[in-house]
Amino acid sequence: MTEIVLPEDTNPRGSVFGGRVLALIDKCAAIAAMRHARSEVLTVSMDSVVFLSRVVAGHVLTLHGRLNAAFGSSMEVEVTVESEEPRSGARTLTTRALVTMVAVDDLSRPRRVPALDSGDDAQRRRAEQATERRRRRLAARDDGGA
Amino acid sequence: MTEIVLPEDTNPRGSVFGGRVLALIDKCAAIAAMRHARSEVLTVSMDSVVFLSRVVAGHVLTLHGRLNAAFGSSMEVEVTVESEEPRSGARTLTTRALVTMVAVDDLSRPRRVPALDSGDDAQRRRAEQATERRRRRLAARDDGGA
Amino acid sequence: MTEIVLPEDTNPRGSVFGGRVLALIDKCAAIAAMRHARSEVLTVSMDSVVFLSRVVAGHVLTLHGRLNAAFGSSMEVEVTVESEEPRSGARTLTTRALVTMVAVDDLSRPRRVPALDSGDDAQRRRAEQATERRRRRLAARDDGGA
Amino acid sequence: MTEIVLPEDTNPRGSVFGGRVLALIDKCAAIAAMRHARSEVLTVSMDSVVFLSRVVAGHVLTLHGRLNAAFGSSMEVEVTVESEEPRSGARTLTTRALVTMVAVDDLSRPRRVPALDSGDDAQRRRAEQATERRRRRLAARDDGGA
Amino acid sequence: MTEIVLPEDTNPRGSVFGGRVLALIDKCAAIAAMRHARSEVLTVSMDSVVFLSRVVAGHVLTLHGRLNAAFGSSMEVEVTVESEEPRSGARTLTTRALVTMVAVDDLSRPRRVPALDSGDDAQRRRAEQATERRRRRLAARDDGGA
Amino acid sequence: MTEIVLPEDTNPRGSVFGGRVLALIDKCAAIAAMRHARSEVLTVSMDSVVFLSRVVAGHVLTLHGRLNAAFGSSMEVEVTVESEEPRSGARTLTTRALVTMVAVDDLSRPRRVPALDSGDDAQRRRAEQATERRRRRLAARDDGGA
Repeated sequence: MTEIVLPEDTNPRGSVFGGRVLALIDKCAAIAAMRHARSEVLTVSMDSVVFLSRVVAGHVLTLHGRLNAAFGSSMEVEVTVESEEPRSGARTLTTRALVTMVAVDDLSRPRRVPALDSGDDAQRRRAEQATERRRRRLAARDDGGA
Repeated sequence: MTEIVLPEDTNPRGSVFGGRVLALIDKCAAIAAMRHARSEVLTVSMDSVVFLSRVVAGHVLTLHGRLNAAFGSSMEVEVTVESEEPRSGARTLTTRALVTMVAVDDLSRPRRVPALDSGDDAQRRRAEQATERRRRRLAARDDGGA
Repeated sequence: MTEIVLPEDTNPRGSVFGGRVLALIDKCAAIAAMRHARSEVLTVSMDSVVFLSRVVAGHVLTLHGRLNAAFGSSMEVEVTVESEEPRSGARTLTTRALVTMVAVDDLSRPRRVPALDSGDDAQRRRAEQATERRRRRLAARDDGGA
Repeated sequence: MTEIVLPEDTNPRGSVFGGRVLALIDKCAAIAAMRHARSEVLTVSMDSVVFLSRVVAGHVLTLHGRLNAAFGSSMEVEVTVESEEPRSGARTLTTRALVTMVAVDDLSRPRRVPALDSGDDAQRRRAEQATERRRRRLAARDDGGA
Repeated sequence: MTEIVLPEDTNPRGSVFGGRVLALIDKCAAIAAMRHARSEVLTVSMDSVVFLSRVVAGHVLTLHGRLNAAFGSSMEVEVTVESEEPRSGARTLTTRALVTMVAVDDLSRPRRVPALDSGDDAQRRRAEQATERRRRRLAARDDGGA
Repeated sequence: MTEIVLPEDTNPRGSVFGGRVLALIDKCAAIAAMRHARSEVLTVSMDSVVFLSRVVAGHVLTLHGRLNAAFGSSMEVEVTVESEEPRSGARTLTTRALVTMVAVDDLSRPRRVPALDSGDDAQRRRAEQATERRRRRLAARDDGGA
């Protein structure tokens, strides 16, 4: 998923709004989750997001979404955002986000999704880390944290 | 900051996109931070966000932004989002987010912001908690975490 | 209801379009009317609107909507718009508008709304003035005026 | 100026927002005024606007703007909005608006515009009526009215 | 159909995106076709489009759509786009496009449209040329060309 | 470049506007050309585009842009658009387009771009075909054709 940053997305000094990048991350995660779930999806949560570099008007943003793990009806999707200065081609990592999506049926009730293929070692490690993050997210919620 | 959720913000079943809410949160946090800093601001990070309830087309979203603490050139803003069903007036908490913004000058370099008035006990407690969260965010960054 | 004026809302010299402010006024009035009527609403009319000051990109607009009176199925909502220069915090009144909204049911037919609490003296005076304005609006319409 | 009403412009029951029509009226008036003034323009005021019929998604809106009179640096533009049901071709008058625009130079200061050709009798009558309306608008402003 | 080119439609140097003009051409052709067909329409194809001049922010675009011919359920619409520099009033031809639209019923199936009145000699010649272009388009499609 | 088709992009029956797809094609071609030219680009022309299948709300559009050839300051980019039904994963080719872009400097004057690596046989054949198409486009323009 690739986007040019247009003037409409920027503040008067030409820096892109963080909220614009967050909306693109959510869209990218939804597409990755829909393709795995073969159903519509809703956003459950986004882990903390740090903007590592400033994005300016005229840059090209590239987003990659990858499913890390599937748990019953929910999925963790990892999205990376790179910003490319089109004249030099220099790319910098803008941010990386972990988004949890839930698959839903036509009445917006959760529905099960296929298990994720265990894949290679790297994929297994990502699934394990996602499972551990999920355990901590659920614990934080039980504690009343956001 | 109050918004009606319009059809353009929804998926084909009428649920609002999480990314649309994230973009509104960022805008609300930016306004709160600009008013304190009296300068333009950029988004540094957003702590994890959990969507507690589904928002549907026709609902009214109300966002409140409050500065929890100011640290040199950065500020922590807490944003709460409520969704109101306009026929019954029933309100549910959609999400709560913690956004860190940095004040910048005309060349997009960080610039100092005023200290936050210590205020009452509740405000002092919020500032202490924000300071503790900031400590953990910086530690996580040093560890190479997101 | 608070909005930052973004580049997309401005002409090439950075002044905001009047039409953008008019659309925000209509949205603000609709939310105030929906909350009173507990139903969907349609815009019936807007009294004359004068732009008292120029709004430029980067300013923060704040809109306040207040119900002046309810008449059967229609309501008069008063909306004030202030523009804030974020560096100085200086606020100027941009405009004040009187919008008449009608409550409608699912088939877009008018439906009665609750009477407005008579409230204090100031509120009673506003309701009387609104009633007088309504009388003149209806008379103007009978005369074939716009 | 012709527009299809799209889903993004409508409430969940398919009625178009009044604010969307007001924004189109402002754009139409600005184009008519720019063509006469040969400069950029700002919106000064809009006389009261009554929505005579409901507009629904899928209808075609047609706006016509006509300069009624020019006074120094300001101009009165009359805009009519018709809504066309595309299957039957039936057209209904949605609204008629009187918009006052001011011509501005590069520093947003008022600049004089050419006088309007006196034209035929109908045009002269429109200019006289516009002059009388302007007299009343200025009087209302001196009285502190909106 | 008349549009001001706004900052949101432009790249960082103020030139309008070709894609923005193409979207306006499609909308203009759809309105012309809907008015003839008295039904909804879908875009079938657009013949090659050449941008003859650059359009910049602040210019006024004027689009004219004209039906050249109707064939069963499809129609050829010719759209011309002119760009006007508002200070001088100078107009340049931006592009000319030939769009084929098909009329559809509520289930999106093609439905017949009325024949086009033969009109004067100029109109007859346009219909003949459109018929010849259609013959070539269908032949190109049979050859597997795009 | 991947996009979900949202309600805002569709007519009241849920079919996506052709103009929306044309705008995405232009954006995809611009990104491919900017990456080769390492400068800003303007759209020169788009060869005829045929919509081979209907796209509906909720589908995922995938666009691929590939440079076929570079000629001095201009480039031919081929864009394919696929539409994916997210429940079944079924993909259909929506359209294929050939877009000519020109690289420009800060004053919007054409500037030379690097030659395209001759690559493998398939790439050489594409470049030859693009060169032949360019010859025919220039000839058509000399004949006064669009």
